[in-house]
Amino acid sequence: MAENGAKRIRLGMVGGGTGAFIGYVHRVAARIDGDYELVAGALSSRPEVARESGRNLGLADDRIYTSYEEMAKAEAARPDGIQAVSIVTPNHMHFGPTKAFLEAGIHVICDKPITSTLEDARKLAEIKPAKGAKFLLTHNYTGYPLIRQARELVASGALGKIRVVQAEYAQDWLTEAADEGNKQAAWRTDPARSGAGGCIGDIGTHAYNLARFVTGLRTEAVSADLTAFVPGRQLDDNVHIMLRFEGGAKGMLWASQVAVGKENGLQLRVYGDKGGLEWSQENPNYMWFTEFGKPRQLITRGGSISVPPAASMNVRIPAGHPEGYLEAFATLYSQFAAVIRGEGADYESLLPTMADGIEGMQFITASVKSSQNDSKWTRFADV
Amino acid sequence: MAENGAKRIRLGMVGGGTGAFIGYVHRVAARIDGDYELVAGALSSRPEVARESGRNLGLADDRIYTSYEEMAKAEAARPDGIQAVSIVTPNHMHFGPTKAFLEAGIHVICDKPITSTLEDARKLAEIKPAKGAKFLLTHNYTGYPLIRQARELVASGALGKIRVVQAEYAQDWLTEAADEGNKQAAWRTDPARSGAGGCIGDIGTHAYNLARFVTGLRTEAVSADLTAFVPGRQLDDNVHIMLRFEGGAKGMLWASQVAVGKENGLQLRVYGDKGGLEWSQENPNYMWFTEFGKPRQLITRGGSISVPPAASMNVRIPAGHPEGYLEAFATLYSQFAAVIRGEGADYESLLPTMADGIEGMQFITASVKSSQNDSKWTRFADV
Amino acid sequence: MAENGAKRIRLGMVGGGTGAFIGYVHRVAARIDGDYELVAGALSSRPEVARESGRNLGLADDRIYTSYEEMAKAEAARPDGIQAVSIVTPNHMHFGPTKAFLEAGIHVICDKPITSTLEDARKLAEIKPAKGAKFLLTHNYTGYPLIRQARELVASGALGKIRVVQAEYAQDWLTEAADEGNKQAAWRTDPARSGAGGCIGDIGTHAYNLARFVTGLRTEAVSADLTAFVPGRQLDDNVHIMLRFEGGAKGMLWASQVAVGKENGLQLRVYGDKGGLEWSQENPNYMWFTEFGKPRQLITRGGSISVPPAASMNVRIPAGHPEGYLEAFATLYSQFAAVIRGEGADYESLLPTMADGIEGMQFITASVKSSQNDSKWTRFADV
Amino acid sequence: MAENGAKRIRLGMVGGGTGAFIGYVHRVAARIDGDYELVAGALSSRPEVARESGRNLGLADDRIYTSYEEMAKAEAARPDGIQAVSIVTPNHMHFGPTKAFLEAGIHVICDKPITSTLEDARKLAEIKPAKGAKFLLTHNYTGYPLIRQARELVASGALGKIRVVQAEYAQDWLTEAADEGNKQAAWRTDPARSGAGGCIGDIGTHAYNLARFVTGLRTEAVSADLTAFVPGRQLDDNVHIMLRFEGGAKGMLWASQVAVGKENGLQLRVYGDKGGLEWSQENPNYMWFTEFGKPRQLITRGGSISVPPAASMNVRIPAGHPEGYLEAFATLYSQFAAVIRGEGADYESLLPTMADGIEGMQFITASVKSSQNDSKWTRFADV
Ligand SMILES: NC(=O)c1ccc[n+]([C@@H]2O[C@H](COP(=O)([O-])OP(=O)(O)OC[C@H]3O[C@@H](n4cnc5c(N)ncnc54)[C@H](O)[C@@H]3O)[C@@H](O)[C@H]2O)c1
Ligand SMILES: NC(=O)c1ccc[n+]([C@@H]2O[C@H](COP(=O)([O-])OP(=O)(O)OC[C@H]3O[C@@H](n4cnc5c(N)ncnc54)[C@H](O)[C@@H]3O)[C@@H](O)[C@H]2O)c1
Ligand SMILES: NC(=O)c1ccc[n+]([C@@H]2O[C@H](COP(=O)([O-])OP(=O)(O)OC[C@H]3O[C@@H](n4cnc5c(N)ncnc54)[C@H](O)[C@@H]3O)[C@@H](O)[C@H]2O)c1
Ligand SMILES: NC(=O)c1ccc[n+]([C@@H]2O[C@H](COP(=O)([O-])OP(=O)(O)OC[C@H]3O[C@@H](n4cnc5c(N)ncnc54)[C@H](O)[C@@H]3O)[C@@H](O)[C@H]2O)c1
Repeated sequence: MAENGAKRIRLGMVGGGTGAFIGYVHRVAARIDGDYELVAGALSSRPEVARESGRNLGLADDRIYTSYEEMAKAEAARPDGIQAVSIVTPNHMHFGPTKAFLEAGIHVICDKPITSTLEDARKLAEIKPAKGAKFLLTHNYTGYPLIRQARELVASGALGKIRVVQAEYAQDWLTEAADEGNKQAAWRTDPARSGAGGCIGDIGTHAYNLARFVTGLRTEAVSADLTAFVPGRQLDDNVHIMLRFEGGAKGMLWASQVAVGKENGLQLRVYGDKGGLEWSQENPNYMWFTEFGKPRQLITRGGSISVPPAASMNVRIPAGHPEGYLEAFATLYSQFAAVIRGEGADYESLLPTMADGIEGMQFITASVKSSQNDSKWTRFADV
Repeated sequence: MAENGAKRIRLGMVGGGTGAFIGYVHRVAARIDGDYELVAGALSSRPEVARESGRNLGLADDRIYTSYEEMAKAEAARPDGIQAVSIVTPNHMHFGPTKAFLEAGIHVICDKPITSTLEDARKLAEIKPAKGAKFLLTHNYTGYPLIRQARELVASGALGKIRVVQAEYAQDWLTEAADEGNKQAAWRTDPARSGAGGCIGDIGTHAYNLARFVTGLRTEAVSADLTAFVPGRQLDDNVHIMLRFEGGAKGMLWASQVAVGKENGLQLRVYGDKGGLEWSQENPNYMWFTEFGKPRQLITRGGSISVPPAASMNVRIPAGHPEGYLEAFATLYSQFAAVIRGEGADYESLLPTMADGIEGMQFITASVKSSQNDSKWTRFADV
Repeated sequence: MAENGAKRIRLGMVGGGTGAFIGYVHRVAARIDGDYELVAGALSSRPEVARESGRNLGLADDRIYTSYEEMAKAEAARPDGIQAVSIVTPNHMHFGPTKAFLEAGIHVICDKPITSTLEDARKLAEIKPAKGAKFLLTHNYTGYPLIRQARELVASGALGKIRVVQAEYAQDWLTEAADEGNKQAAWRTDPARSGAGGCIGDIGTHAYNLARFVTGLRTEAVSADLTAFVPGRQLDDNVHIMLRFEGGAKGMLWASQVAVGKENGLQLRVYGDKGGLEWSQENPNYMWFTEFGKPRQLITRGGSISVPPAASMNVRIPAGHPEGYLEAFATLYSQFAAVIRGEGADYESLLPTMADGIEGMQFITASVKSSQNDSKWTRFADV
Repeated sequence: MAENGAKRIRLGMVGGGTGAFIGYVHRVAARIDGDYELVAGALSSRPEVARESGRNLGLADDRIYTSYEEMAKAEAARPDGIQAVSIVTPNHMHFGPTKAFLEAGIHVICDKPITSTLEDARKLAEIKPAKGAKFLLTHNYTGYPLIRQARELVASGALGKIRVVQAEYAQDWLTEAADEGNKQAAWRTDPARSGAGGCIGDIGTHAYNLARFVTGLRTEAVSADLTAFVPGRQLDDNVHIMLRFEGGAKGMLWASQVAVGKENGLQLRVYGDKGGLEWSQENPNYMWFTEFGKPRQLITRGGSISVPPAASMNVRIPAGHPEGYLEAFATLYSQFAAVIRGEGADYESLLPTMADGIEGMQFITASVKSSQNDSKWTRFADV
């Protein structure tokens, strides 16, 4: 892994104040490979928290903001202003900052789902970024080395023509009605901030994106059955979906936040007419690969197999020494840094884009619609 | 495990000649606990094979038959005639023998699916067995000790109200078009002998039955997408189904015979509002059980947990010494022997019945109909 | 698997009465493939138990004996007398019956360790069996199909020259002082009946034998540290041994009956200069095999690999349908049946012999001596 | 995890130039939590490589050194000089830099083994650090959260009195004679740079340290059998050791660099009279914990168990999102940063010290001596 201490990118952050979840993860991801330096932030919706959070992180006083609009303006005007910004607010608060910063000529790293409505997502596509500002969507699981390798195996034809895709992401943390004080649960179960999907937007989109990323298959239609099991919950906490892909492949997707015993059970299984592969996020340094009629092989991250370049580029340490969630996240950050510096041609096709974000919103929207329609097959083209 | 060498039951067999698959398994299952003695058979549709197979198995010449009708008649007439018969022919050849033997007052052990059509299955229910002859359907996976224990855990309320059921059974042996010479593949992919379902009947019914057996949930409706991936194949080789159970639980069922890398991947996962459990047939001596908010526990067959009686009754050897498929199968045989001897009151509610077989045909029929109907939710009540 | 219902071998049993452990297992093993018929027994040291046990098993009254000497004499004299006998008494009670039956011209199937002293074991070798009576030692783990395959892999050179052998067998059932009433524990912790070794004889010999069977390596010397952790226990309950093999390979062997959490953790790992393999008894249908520089492969019992004949001969059901402990045990029984019938030439080199039993006693004796001698390397040649 | 962007510690590095292995890892570890800023280095023994490596890392020209002596002097003299230094050179090159920097009042983070001879290690203890400079030994595996938790479980008495400790660290990368060009292999197999131990020093010390860290047991003596399997190799590549601990516990330790199929198979298993635990580095977010007579529990990092403070302090992300090797390494760095800032009282007892390093050298020295002495039990007190 290249280290680029000499050419650090100045980074800002919107959201991610004290008590927030994913903002912290973005900061670690930005630090791991040494490509970024956090220098500015509008870290919370509450001014005091924004200020205190900024000070704790060592930001200069004049670069701690209490509104992202202000921050976009001020930073764009400084000679040493931020070059990129991370947007780690709840879903409904992605559109505004993304627009503001792109139009200010600042690269945007935005968490998923890209917006809270498909309408907003489509409006994003109309933004005209100033100064070639670029956009990265942090579908972080695509950063796992073996997921990259799975994608290459499929692309190389090692699995033959893909027939069946089984994707799932099961958790149990919303098995019971959440406490009042649970910040993360509060907005996720509120349609105004989360959008029309609950579990499907929060984790279903990850499973969907992973299947898309690895197989390259385009979705034709979905038949969905979404359920809110916990009494009083407004948004789905369990998602059952059947998928039809262009070219005839079929799939199933299960996402749940009420599957007792599951922590972050994201799993992908792909079967073609020549081979199959299986990967699970909770032990991400191993992947099963089977050629029809031969014994199953356990591929290890960076291990004994001829690893094509793109996959190896983000292997940091030798096989048998586990890398995890943070490193996969960091890979998106450092490869986006390369893109920003104009050295990332190899990665452009790998990094999740605005188009992926819009497709994710189509997935949510079509699924919600199908579910409301007694699971009628619903085409992406029709939402 | 009781051994009843002193009171062996005289057994006959229809099907299961040289080269057949499941007949051999039934014979081993019948021997393991010593409750049966095979003494007669109509072992093949081809007379020579029937004769040679009978001789190899040590049957007396006058008890080797070439037609099951003849066998039913002759054995019913002998004072030392068979008390029970195993029917291990292809699906379309279950109805006839079952009827013949039950009406001859001979207990029937029949493999699944119970018939090749729902119509036939319903006609079975109208048969009047002579002399109290009883019927066992060999949904053999229900014989696994941990499956019994799973059923008891659910019934005891340890999982709370069941919300989500994920069942699957994936294999890869039909990934390519089968050879001409493959006996097992030949009838399974032929609607005339297999019925309207391919993979769904062959293994989907096992996954369905297992979910039913463990959870006790009654199915309301299914939404299915069945596919024949192998060019030229007439019956489905991949099955995607969403399920709705009475009382609000939801489920998914995946069955496939084209999932490269899968051998006999039968797996059941059940989640309630208090706990969850997961079990996989390929390593059947272990089961995950989680109470919400506590660490996952690995329950072992016969291991350190207070095992309720019914479960322990069919544990033969100490925990850590694996039992497998044949022992689970044998448990059905020996518990049915107890029923036959009038000592099996404890087991009657556990052993798969004709009603289970009919429900299995409803499952196939409703799924095929749904699939033909663009996955429209189809109620069992409507087939 | 061949079924030989037509030519069943008449079998007797010494030990194995009601409440005994391994006798039951031998009976199941004898039944599975249908090669034997149990017709006589001296099943217990207590006459009443012997009689009641015999009746339960359906033995004729005149073939229920209360002493093995009497049984050997009477059965040898009958035209329909037993052809083989299973000896399943505690260790000190193996020598007498073995001698009596072999001299009576009856084949002997004896459990391990072969005797309670090395001296007795050596005397066994001097017995002159009548009528070509043969001997089988039930080191049952050698019957696992993948263990056979492991042996063939090593013999074929697939692992290259063997360097390192790591064997272990860990249980936890003797973690605390056993209850008075625990029959199995009582004799196992009593030197008079068990011999000079406790855990080492009971399960250490299995691990040792497995390593020998798979690698074919001959042991030069051992350095051992045996411990009795439970206060008051007279025999070892934990065994640490280093091994040196002829030709330079090295090994370690750990056996324990106080390893909390272990049920029957028998595990073998073998590494050569070209490849390595790993197998664990608790999930015996899978084996890791790695060729240096290539991904690990998961070999499955009867699965997708060119299986040499001897290994496949004892695979009963398709890959993915687990076979277990009882089937492995049964393989020894049915292959010994073939030997008895003069059809077992292929198996003679595979079945554990008297020589293996004597070597097992050398292993125990040399280890105990080394341990008493501050772990001094002790040569098998010197005990 | 606290982030201390505001109070970064100025860090230097000795070794770790382009092409080196562990220096890179130290840099990532230093970055993850944001507690350090790398500002100076003597990165290679070859001046050009030192310079080029420094420039790549963004060091100022006047802080790129070609000798560590010079660096220690110059940095100690600067007002903005480094506060801490990482020493990541081969073993024989630890003593000199450690002495130089400690005497210059600069905190030292040194990799293991602490020196190449026990003599050197003991001399280290006589150094008088200026200005309270502190020392950290990077036995990085002690940073894994579940290893911390294992230590707490043992200390809490949950396992009862410890009886048996099984430690192992197996790799396969030295299965064949290394290429000329393999930098890492070259010095590791050369006694002048590595010391008297090969594999035992390189990875055996990690396994030993881990056992010590978790159990707290003090070693009395070792009986060792060290082997160099690869022809021509001067130092051991396979290590078999039996251990005796004060108080009567016993252990085994296996380390190997020729175990084909093993990548970084560091594993620890500990059994007491009440409970047992098992942990493996290749999947470090899971640990088995069994209370005698109860089912095995799978403890997850940060998961559903009351986690005592010290363990939780270094959990960065939720259970089910894997952390790995780099995060464990980072934990040592950030907790040492807290110690340096005078805020690390909670960690002082957890971080590996000079005393641990000296004990590691005793372990190597006693084992080598025992092995040369036909595995005679050798007391740490006697080396
Ligand atoms: N990639 C992933 O795996 C992943 C994981 C978790 C969350 N997420 C996504 O990250 C986003 C945040 O989720 P979270 O769990 O961290 O939520 P959170 O509630 O923990 O944090 C949200 C933060 O945004 C701040 N915020 C809200 N409005 C703001 C505003 N107008 N200006 C500045 N700050 C504002 C809040 O004060 C808080 O600090 C969501 O879109 C979520 O879907 C992605
Ligand atoms: N419970 C299970 O797990 C399981 C597994 C496999 C098969 N099965 C079921 O068992 C049945 C048989 O499957 P199989 O794989 O063994 O098939 P198979 O083709 O291997 O064997 C069928 C046997 O039936 C014989 N047969 C056909 N018609 C006959 C007749 N009229 N009279 C006498 N014998 C006749 C054939 O000669 C052959 O010996 C099927 O219904 C199948 O669904 C169940
Ligand atoms: N192969 C294996 O894996 C395995 C497993 C368990 C036991 N064993 C071996 O099997 C043997 C028996 O062990 P167990 O656990 O079954 O013991 P057990 O105590 O359960 O049974 C021993 C039986 O022998 C009977 N017996 C004792 N003396 C007798 C005599 N003189 N005549 C007739 N019967 C007599 C007892 O009454 C009892 O029925 C031992 O040698 C043991 O090492 C082997
Ligand atoms: N904690 C762990 O898990 C772990 C893992 C690997 C290595 N290590 C230890 O780290 C140390 C280095 O191992 P490595 O594998 O990185 O070795 P390496 O050969 O890859 O790197 C050693 C580096 O030290 C430099 N060097 C040598 N002499 C120097 C000098 N006088 N001044 C400046 N630089 C000098 C070399 O140029 C090279 O850059 C060893 O002590 C090893 O035991 C620890």
